[in-house]
Amino acid sequence: MDITIYNTTLLTMQGKGLGVIPNATIGIEEGLVKYLGRAKTIDYKKADQIIDGSHHITMPGFINSHIHSGITLLRGAAQDVPEIEWMNKAIGPFVKHLTKEDLIAGSKLGVLEGVSSGTTTFAEYTTNVKDLVEEVYFPWGIRVVAIETINEVNRDRSRLKPTDLYEFDQDKGIAAFKRNKQLFQTFKGNPLVSVMFGPQALDMISLELLKEIQAECHERLSKFHMHVAQGGRERLQIQGRFGKDKTTVKVLKSHDLLDSHLIAVHIHDTTSQERELLVNNDVGMVGCPSSISMIDGIVPPVSHYRSLGGIASLGTDQAPGPGNHNMIRELRTISLLTKVLIQDPTAIPAWEALQLVSVLGSHNLGLEKKVGTLEVGKQADIITIDLKKVNLTPEIYKPFYNFIPNLVYSMNGNEVDNVIINGEMIIHNYKFEKIDTKSIIDDVNQRATRIFVDAEEDWIQADSQLVDFHRKGLI
Amino acid sequence: MDITIYNTTLLTMQGKGLGVIPNATIGIEEGLVKYLGRAKTIDYKKADQIIDGSHHITMPGFINSHIHSGITLLRGAAQDVPEIEWMNKAIGPFVKHLTKEDLIAGSKLGVLEGVSSGTTTFAEYTTNVKDLVEEVYFPWGIRVVAIETINEVNRDRSRLKPTDLYEFDQDKGIAAFKRNKQLFQTFKGNPLVSVMFGPQALDMISLELLKEIQAECHERLSKFHMHVAQGGRERLQIQGRFGKDKTTVKVLKSHDLLDSHLIAVHIHDTTSQERELLVNNDVGMVGCPSSISMIDGIVPPVSHYRSLGGIASLGTDQAPGPGNHNMIRELRTISLLTKVLIQDPTAIPAWEALQLVSVLGSHNLGLEKKVGTLEVGKQADIITIDLKKVNLTPEIYKPFYNFIPNLVYSMNGNEVDNVIINGEMIIHNYKFEKIDTKSIIDDVNQRATRIFVDAEEDWIQADSQLVDFHRKGLI
Repeated sequence: MDITIYNTTLLTMQGKGLGVIPNATIGIEEGLVKYLGRAKTIDYKKADQIIDGSHHITMPGFINSHIHSGITLLRGAAQDVPEIEWMNKAIGPFVKHLTKEDLIAGSKLGVLEGVSSGTTTFAEYTTNVKDLVEEVYFPWGIRVVAIETINEVNRDRSRLKPTDLYEFDQDKGIAAFKRNKQLFQTFKGNPLVSVMFGPQALDMISLELLKEIQAECHERLSKFHMHVAQGGRERLQIQGRFGKDKTTVKVLKSHDLLDSHLIAVHIHDTTSQERELLVNNDVGMVGCPSSISMIDGIVPPVSHYRSLGGIASLGTDQAPGPGNHNMIRELRTISLLTKVLIQDPTAIPAWEALQLVSVLGSHNLGLEKKVGTLEVGKQADIITIDLKKVNLTPEIYKPFYNFIPNLVYSMNGNEVDNVIINGEMIIHNYKFEKIDTKSIIDDVNQRATRIFVDAEEDWIQADSQLVDFHRKGLI
Repeated sequence: MDITIYNTTLLTMQGKGLGVIPNATIGIEEGLVKYLGRAKTIDYKKADQIIDGSHHITMPGFINSHIHSGITLLRGAAQDVPEIEWMNKAIGPFVKHLTKEDLIAGSKLGVLEGVSSGTTTFAEYTTNVKDLVEEVYFPWGIRVVAIETINEVNRDRSRLKPTDLYEFDQDKGIAAFKRNKQLFQTFKGNPLVSVMFGPQALDMISLELLKEIQAECHERLSKFHMHVAQGGRERLQIQGRFGKDKTTVKVLKSHDLLDSHLIAVHIHDTTSQERELLVNNDVGMVGCPSSISMIDGIVPPVSHYRSLGGIASLGTDQAPGPGNHNMIRELRTISLLTKVLIQDPTAIPAWEALQLVSVLGSHNLGLEKKVGTLEVGKQADIITIDLKKVNLTPEIYKPFYNFIPNLVYSMNGNEVDNVIINGEMIIHNYKFEKIDTKSIIDDVNQRATRIFVDAEEDWIQADSQLVDFHRKGLI
């Protein structure tokens, strides 16, 4: 055995509940879960690395189903601003100044905070995603779903009015689609990397290209991961292009683009009927509660989607909206926001929140045979959570497990002391085995300081509400 | 000088914004702020303790305006349960089994997590509050507003239907009132302790006793701190006692009980007109966003109260609802919940959230001459926040301070590295100077394990929805 964790409480995430097994041992060999169970039928001492799992939860690593990690470099740049201004006026002026190296540095920062708070799989969605896989995820040993952003519109839209239609550039879309297809070849057989297609959103791509992408998905048995119905900006473009009575979901449906290969991100700007349509067509959804509440003042309809029978999971989206890539915050955030949305304190209870970032995440990303639960034969993506932390005390096993609600409602993100991905120890006893955190922080600070200064004039000209707040001494 | 913090970024919390002073030094002597400013007109090296404040925010410690710390021992006992069951069926069966020593142990746990995440003042609201002040707050050197709970109803209400009126016990109320009055004598001249009256709620006290309390407040120039309009349980009792068309605010108004001496906690079960009435009568409000969203599925009307011109601040309430006593979580929680409540991402921006837990908290608790801002002559209740943490990176000063939104939207609670209260160093470089955290955790675990086992039968008999969830293996 390479690693054993003994005398621990397992949350296997199998079955209807959380599949709790107290006083358990789990054994890892050659990247896989080799043994798990209550009885000590293996000698846990016969392993290269032995971890005392007492006073710890051992569970599947979290799955972040949607992240743009590169712009973590812009943390704190665009909050408390009207939704209509967020992308083009608040964050846009800074994004323009990011180089390839800046995005890699930002990605390192984001992945660092994600992994240290228990995330082991990231669905990374960005332009030139290959750079991030090759420079960050793969060398660090982190599981990634690589999704190339495919759009046909210009990057600088800061001077457009919301009703001005985006201009399309077919060559840009084709080039991105080509990059996306090449990823399958580049990462073929890589145990840590899988690939999906990433059409950005219906307002930023032609129907022709979208249909080509869907056909490619069918052929490759892959999925396409797309922002769908994400609010005012998109709605105005769709109405302008397709007609006043049209919505993203209606257009997708009428062109047979809704099927089990689609993962629809956000979907908060949908009617109840449209969500039913999505569920009935086996579309998966991803909700990003911290991001969408911050940017739009909206609760992702995760609970509604689940109640209709759909598969849903969670993502952090990006840092300049929600703040960071700590999935533990997303657990509490989706539960709390849903409780107030429907004024029901029983909404998204702790166990359901934990399912969203494990077993349901793996199903949504097509990784259900590899990760998302603890089972013999699956890849060993495993975290341990230290119940001896002040905020997880007391630790109660009878008459019920108080640590289940505490994981969701009291964890902050600094309780994950071991992170194993694909059988490799990434974090041991709160410390990254191979990553020098300090040098990443210093590099990001240098880069961000330059970018913020370089972008100052563009930022002032774009004139979001934050510029006024700055003049008043509020930021 | 006893302590100086040099080369730091001060958030003084003075003025309309946050009163930012970069490259500043602050000096502390005999418990007071003796110097602060940008220029180095004092030699910061001439102090007993010198702290390098570079890459740090230095600001007033947070004010928790409402806490019942004793029941932190019951963390994880009562979540995801209908509001009507929470107090009497979910948490009640456990509360019955708490001894005085258990409550002290629970309080230690709660105060520990509050202080380590930056709280320096706690408005502690409990029966026999003197025990907690004498056993926890005062020996530990933590600022506390001592509030004795005064009610006239029996503790065990687990067998009552919601519409059964509580029975009153006048002697119980008089005894509590007497204890509350004695606190003024006991803690007279104590620099860390101030006292308020604590009538529990209108459904649990007679009007006669409430009027006596108010008169005593006027005489002593103190305040009374009361749960007001906190939802279904209270509403049914008020209607049963005073008539179908009556509400808590209406009854209080008609008996001249609304004035500047009242601090009204929660008030979510109020109409817009009632809130105006409270504001116009100079009543302060306290919102507990994590607690009330968890227990009731409701957003405290903090933003509305502020927009009417009222003073509002924040509290954590208790642990078995919200999870813990980390005020940093409350900052983000009130902002996010309000953004979705009124679907406006500009609601409660970062600077306003920070005001709620500092300058506004001090005004609400009548401590505005002592704490809440950094000013020469005020008590030195000061925290430093480490901007070199991954989740607070990058650290940007130009064109604006990105750390202002990051403090609210990206802090988790483990970034506070120094805590000074009344000029005394309580936490230095992330470590408590005098408190043995491990022994407190061990003691709490022992006590809680006993309580949960002892209460099992009562808990099953009370039959909240959690009992069913437990049978299904969900907790």
